[in-house]
Amino acid sequence: MSFPFEYDTGAQLPFGGVLPHVATFDASKVVILPVPVDRTTSYVGGTRNGPREILVASSHMELWDEEVGADVHGVGMYTLPEMELPFGELPAVMDEIRRVAYEVIARDKFLITLGGEHSITPPLVAAAAQKFPNLSVLQIDAHADLRSTYMGTIHNHACAMRRVLDYASLTQVGIRSLSTEEAEAIPELNTNIFYDATMRRDPQWIDRVVDTLQDPVYITIDVDGMDPAIMPATGTPEPGGLSWYEMLALLKATLMRRRVVACDIVELSPLPGLVAPNFLCSKLIYKIITYRFAGR
Amino acid sequence: MSFPFEYDTGAQLPFGGVLPHVATFDASKVVILPVPVDRTTSYVGGTRNGPREILVASSHMELWDEEVGADVHGVGMYTLPEMELPFGELPAVMDEIRRVAYEVIARDKFLITLGGEHSITPPLVAAAAQKFPNLSVLQIDAHADLRSTYMGTIHNHACAMRRVLDYASLTQVGIRSLSTEEAEAIPELNTNIFYDATMRRDPQWIDRVVDTLQDPVYITIDVDGMDPAIMPATGTPEPGGLSWYEMLALLKATLMRRRVVACDIVELSPLPGLVAPNFLCSKLIYKIITYRFAGR
Amino acid sequence: MSFPFEYDTGAQLPFGGVLPHVATFDASKVVILPVPVDRTTSYVGGTRNGPREILVASSHMELWDEEVGADVHGVGMYTLPEMELPFGELPAVMDEIRRVAYEVIARDKFLITLGGEHSITPPLVAAAAQKFPNLSVLQIDAHADLRSTYMGTIHNHACAMRRVLDYASLTQVGIRSLSTEEAEAIPELNTNIFYDATMRRDPQWIDRVVDTLQDPVYITIDVDGMDPAIMPATGTPEPGGLSWYEMLALLKATLMRRRVVACDIVELSPLPGLVAPNFLCSKLIYKIITYRFAGR
Amino acid sequence: MSFPFEYDTGAQLPFGGVLPHVATFDASKVVILPVPVDRTTSYVGGTRNGPREILVASSHMELWDEEVGADVHGVGMYTLPEMELPFGELPAVMDEIRRVAYEVIARDKFLITLGGEHSITPPLVAAAAQKFPNLSVLQIDAHADLRSTYMGTIHNHACAMRRVLDYASLTQVGIRSLSTEEAEAIPELNTNIFYDATMRRDPQWIDRVVDTLQDPVYITIDVDGMDPAIMPATGTPEPGGLSWYEMLALLKATLMRRRVVACDIVELSPLPGLVAPNFLCSKLIYKIITYRFAGR
Amino acid sequence: MSFPFEYDTGAQLPFGGVLPHVATFDASKVVILPVPVDRTTSYVGGTRNGPREILVASSHMELWDEEVGADVHGVGMYTLPEMELPFGELPAVMDEIRRVAYEVIARDKFLITLGGEHSITPPLVAAAAQKFPNLSVLQIDAHADLRSTYMGTIHNHACAMRRVLDYASLTQVGIRSLSTEEAEAIPELNTNIFYDATMRRDPQWIDRVVDTLQDPVYITIDVDGMDPAIMPATGTPEPGGLSWYEMLALLKATLMRRRVVACDIVELSPLPGLVAPNFLCSKLIYKIITYRFAGR
Amino acid sequence: MSFPFEYDTGAQLPFGGVLPHVATFDASKVVILPVPVDRTTSYVGGTRNGPREILVASSHMELWDEEVGADVHGVGMYTLPEMELPFGELPAVMDEIRRVAYEVIARDKFLITLGGEHSITPPLVAAAAQKFPNLSVLQIDAHADLRSTYMGTIHNHACAMRRVLDYASLTQVGIRSLSTEEAEAIPELNTNIFYDATMRRDPQWIDRVVDTLQDPVYITIDVDGMDPAIMPATGTPEPGGLSWYEMLALLKATLMRRRVVACDIVELSPLPGLVAPNFLCSKLIYKIITYRFAGR
Repeated sequence: MSFPFEYDTGAQLPFGGVLPHVATFDASKVVILPVPVDRTTSYVGGTRNGPREILVASSHMELWDEEVGADVHGVGMYTLPEMELPFGELPAVMDEIRRVAYEVIARDKFLITLGGEHSITPPLVAAAAQKFPNLSVLQIDAHADLRSTYMGTIHNHACAMRRVLDYASLTQVGIRSLSTEEAEAIPELNTNIFYDATMRRDPQWIDRVVDTLQDPVYITIDVDGMDPAIMPATGTPEPGGLSWYEMLALLKATLMRRRVVACDIVELSPLPGLVAPNFLCSKLIYKIITYRFAGR
Repeated sequence: MSFPFEYDTGAQLPFGGVLPHVATFDASKVVILPVPVDRTTSYVGGTRNGPREILVASSHMELWDEEVGADVHGVGMYTLPEMELPFGELPAVMDEIRRVAYEVIARDKFLITLGGEHSITPPLVAAAAQKFPNLSVLQIDAHADLRSTYMGTIHNHACAMRRVLDYASLTQVGIRSLSTEEAEAIPELNTNIFYDATMRRDPQWIDRVVDTLQDPVYITIDVDGMDPAIMPATGTPEPGGLSWYEMLALLKATLMRRRVVACDIVELSPLPGLVAPNFLCSKLIYKIITYRFAGR
Repeated sequence: MSFPFEYDTGAQLPFGGVLPHVATFDASKVVILPVPVDRTTSYVGGTRNGPREILVASSHMELWDEEVGADVHGVGMYTLPEMELPFGELPAVMDEIRRVAYEVIARDKFLITLGGEHSITPPLVAAAAQKFPNLSVLQIDAHADLRSTYMGTIHNHACAMRRVLDYASLTQVGIRSLSTEEAEAIPELNTNIFYDATMRRDPQWIDRVVDTLQDPVYITIDVDGMDPAIMPATGTPEPGGLSWYEMLALLKATLMRRRVVACDIVELSPLPGLVAPNFLCSKLIYKIITYRFAGR
Repeated sequence: MSFPFEYDTGAQLPFGGVLPHVATFDASKVVILPVPVDRTTSYVGGTRNGPREILVASSHMELWDEEVGADVHGVGMYTLPEMELPFGELPAVMDEIRRVAYEVIARDKFLITLGGEHSITPPLVAAAAQKFPNLSVLQIDAHADLRSTYMGTIHNHACAMRRVLDYASLTQVGIRSLSTEEAEAIPELNTNIFYDATMRRDPQWIDRVVDTLQDPVYITIDVDGMDPAIMPATGTPEPGGLSWYEMLALLKATLMRRRVVACDIVELSPLPGLVAPNFLCSKLIYKIITYRFAGR
Repeated sequence: MSFPFEYDTGAQLPFGGVLPHVATFDASKVVILPVPVDRTTSYVGGTRNGPREILVASSHMELWDEEVGADVHGVGMYTLPEMELPFGELPAVMDEIRRVAYEVIARDKFLITLGGEHSITPPLVAAAAQKFPNLSVLQIDAHADLRSTYMGTIHNHACAMRRVLDYASLTQVGIRSLSTEEAEAIPELNTNIFYDATMRRDPQWIDRVVDTLQDPVYITIDVDGMDPAIMPATGTPEPGGLSWYEMLALLKATLMRRRVVACDIVELSPLPGLVAPNFLCSKLIYKIITYRFAGR
Repeated sequence: MSFPFEYDTGAQLPFGGVLPHVATFDASKVVILPVPVDRTTSYVGGTRNGPREILVASSHMELWDEEVGADVHGVGMYTLPEMELPFGELPAVMDEIRRVAYEVIARDKFLITLGGEHSITPPLVAAAAQKFPNLSVLQIDAHADLRSTYMGTIHNHACAMRRVLDYASLTQVGIRSLSTEEAEAIPELNTNIFYDATMRRDPQWIDRVVDTLQDPVYITIDVDGMDPAIMPATGTPEPGGLSWYEMLALLKATLMRRRVVACDIVELSPLPGLVAPNFLCSKLIYKIITYRFAGR
């Protein structure tokens, strides 16, 4: 925006807040897309507030990463305004998400989408697969989300990963909640499941996860994949799940060993007064950017 | 339920809690129907918790009404279990609500439905109109809810009263929020609007409201019709609105002067830790029952 | 912002959300300036979140005003990004606020500033007085804020109106909290005080307030001037205070009878999970714009 | 307390915080007694936090009263530490409250007790009646609290005023919740009830309340006597009730026309994050002290 | 319940919600008994809400257990209504709990009791010991609860396990808070204590715990035995404690190696707005049922 | 305090509540100093409530330590009233903190200061260094706090440890957030940093930390050094951090192997309704006292 006078602007909700290095869309390698899909009708609560609270939190991060010894924000991080939703029935919403995501990915940007419900992932994967055939998807989640239909629609978040199978192969990590119907269907599906209750028995479990993935890779993180101790701010907080450092180790291994082309973080449902989960999401995204771009 | 041994049961969430006089469905004049329609996907928050919290609160009420000098619970108040929702797309939900409501009303019960979103009112009014032709509807609400369609569907709560006009004439009280499109459409619609900002200038405003209604009458109360001072627990809490005693005076006049056949209370979205709004709804319902049945 | 592809943007936090009529800075009669001054050091809580929560709420308002029968948003409402604060010690902050405010007011915009603490009002009044000599200030507030110094600084919010007296004459409404030192100093000061406990004894009190004001007028609204029943979200919520309709009547009379050139709304300290106070502030601002521009 | 070095102490939770005029017990006309009786077993929540939150809030009050034009704190306000409770079964607790209260009252102090549950009022009234025979009690409350026994004990808060009738005559104001048993017992009891639903029909209702009282007078304020709009922080927040200015007018009339010897404020159950109700209680107490001692 | 028309009922608060397989009391192997004993007097907060929130959460669980590869709900899970409490002084409450528990256990049901305070455990253990002599009790808890009396009563929750020693031998796990009096008494008592601070030093600690138990076994879980990171919703949340997977491993070993006849989960004090702890309790119970009945 | 009658006082907010052994200032080895420095202007929220909530929590602790097998409170723990702040600009506040701290330390007391913001640590260290030359400081923190200046002042909490370097050498543990400027300055500074992301790779990391410290030692604990799972109640809760038992092991090793002369606990910003973090701080302090004085 331009004004007819000098003006020091503050946090207008770009990721990272007011950064030393500000990049245009064209000059940015990373594009953040907030998609607050949430079928509630009031403005109170729910995942619709997830993207905004992540962006608010992000302006309080420090930019140096002591683990890799770098400050990568200079690669350019461009935050799009929230998508205007809902503007119609769900199929139209899904088409629009796919169209916008493709516009970004087709321009060789690393797209990071902020949800919203997990139901946004299928069109995002579809957009990525359109640009990058033979896509593998890494899903970190408590729930398999493999139902065929749920509550009368195929667009419910409980079906998100079943839809994703139309576009990509799947590896699922941290799973610890399944319906009996899903359990019965799994043997027929093109998915590798790493159950939370048992995956740690193999000290090499992270390498084994990455082994199942083939380039290129899309990562979808349902925040309920993490332990409710650090992530209580989600709709169905299942006990168990990944710790902060397990999550980082898994992401680092995947981003170092595979060509990751896009990712999403979904299902954050901010808890009034409790900022820790929002801040964690913000830092998780910056860690992904750091692992993806440091030293390249 | 029956058990194979003696058992003092506690609050199983019937309206009023464990009452001195417990009535069967057949022997009850009043039937409470909880319909927690809410298009959220997690179990946290929202109007889906409204019916349950009203019922929890109701067990803490005392039963004597000092204003009319009576304890009317002996007319029989029967609470149905929550309707199982959602079991499909919205049109199917709406048909099922209408079917169940008609089953109750057809048996000459006074039906009190607990929402849930305001979108449940059209099928409830349709059921009442099927039994009682020439129905008038009294709506207490901050919002006109007269849009033709909204967010791609005619079932949105912002369209609820436009749908109601298909079945009944309408009187709207406490209105203080309108879109420009609605303002332009109103002159063509079969509705009497009492705007919150101006209605109190006529000291006889309550009588004038009742004058617009013809027997039989259905009452729909969107809790946001009340002042957010006493009713902050709703999706869009508009400043202004009815006080507790204005609400009681309006309901008493309507119930005394007209034959009210059913009603609903909708859009309570309980606030964690704040029980006052839930308790108010519970007492409001008991006041309606008292005004309706005391001395008859 | 411009992107290399078509994009339906959602709520980027302009006042009113995504409006039918979007105006440039130059074409707008109204300019909204968020100034989240708050001397806390963490990002949790406090008045620093006030402007953002007001803007979030504003996207859920409807645009028609049923009281005056108009939708005024077409006059152009332009929202500046949040001022970047703090960038130094308080005197420098105050100078910058005054500079920016003057830039806006000098361009004949109607400036509405969103606080932040009440300490931002003196530089705002100074900017307005620079453009409009002989300024009167109408303050709606629970506290007189007339201390000479407080906690070792003249910039504390408890001294805000004592500073304002350097630039303008003062009328104070809703006052119900004073220190003994202030009570003793008042007879010497150029201020008219309408105490909350007694002002309503004169049925013409609103006209009497306006009588004390001379053109041009600046309005400063400390949200604690209102009843905590509708405005609990502030640092020191004093019982008593203006109701919603008293506030509207006072603003309407002032805006109709006097030439109001700018205003501010300060000291909203959002309560997690309770949106009603935020929404009220948003609606209050739109009411001011409506009263100011409808029919002109 | 004395320390071996100079020390500016901060808020140690005396009523009013660090006051300009600090008085010893002997030199104080007012004594504040915190009695956090609450039969919960954890330290979270409930009326046990009421006294502490009132005292915390009190340090943020300003000391001048603009209504009567005085700063009365110089009469001496001495705050006792919280009574150590519970130290046994309820009868022993009640005896100890009575003993301590008598110690204070017998020394010609104006005792203000902070609850805790309403069950503490009978021993407080007993202590006052021991010193001042022919006591009248003014109760401001939503509930009659006239049950004979409740939940197997005569010490339940629902029986508090039935116990009080053993020591004094009674006037009850703001009542709007009764059990059917109480309604039937009332004609036999020595009590004057002013029902909230009807008392305002008589414009002289406040004078009529005072007329029922004979010197000396004890005042017991259950905070639920006030409107939940301003007092949501209580166990059973009944809609309706006294506004802030109705409460002040009633207290002023009583304190001006009658010789009030002691009072209590009970049933504040602080809501986490919402300070307005706590602050209101603190200010209410200072208003009582001001009305009681200004100009005497 | 039966109605005179077809009706799809929703969540009426049975454990697990609306299950595919619904069993009668007689046909159920598992019986859930909610006992919300809590000596508070208002309806806000506290352990009295524990059972209800666990049941609400339970309807959002999925039924397949991926660890053991089974869906066991078909064994029949019958939820009794909440016991009506309190109906008298504590000894009578305790007698009634014992009577009802015995009625269930005597019918060869696996009884799972939901508290409420820990004070309900002694009568539950007494009922189990009446049916199953030579009972061992496994207690998971932060507190030893071995005081002789506390606050003037032997029924306080701080004395619960001292009472239990009258009926059974005891093994205590996760202990990390003791009074000096308890520490001195422990050598004389029939209890094995595994202190949280030291028990993990033995990699076989879980086996060692089970070795101390003899058939039959009763398990009592005070939720504060778990780490406050995952269980902040309790009265005295002691840092340290069992993780989710430590808890599961301990329960699995006990249920596999010993004949467990009944259990209870107590001291959940739900935190408004934070569902994770409630959901965890619900899942913990289903895990117990799964470990107990899978493959048998 | 003394009263003219017998009085069992309750929790007056001394650390530990009403203790069996009560000591005078002179007879106490431990002195607790609450310093609620927080530059907010309202009384709601923030670190200003930290000391009070720690003291409230402390009265619910049990006094026996099962790890070392001792109850050390008999060494005398004396709690000073909160320091009266702010009484001027920051430099004056800092001078006063230093003066008071020196008065305590000079009398050979073990001083434990409760913050408040981390900005109070430099004057505390200065006071300790005045008494004990060649001081080492152990800092447990998420943030390095090594900026030269921040927001226009050298007293900001982001600069606290840079100031400390003027008086002592430094060892920093748990660090996981740095600005790029700090990262560049660190090689020139007299500090040993143990980064949270990497320190656990050395199984002897705790010994290595202690090895960097020389007698005498001052410990400063910013609560955000701990994992937000157990410590969400702080301004910038960084994911990662020390667990409860890691913290205890580090403190035990330091207190056993080095002569620790004073410590502080800062940056607790209590979350309304969530007592676990407050209780943890209270227990952490008692653990420090136990490790420091048991067996000496």
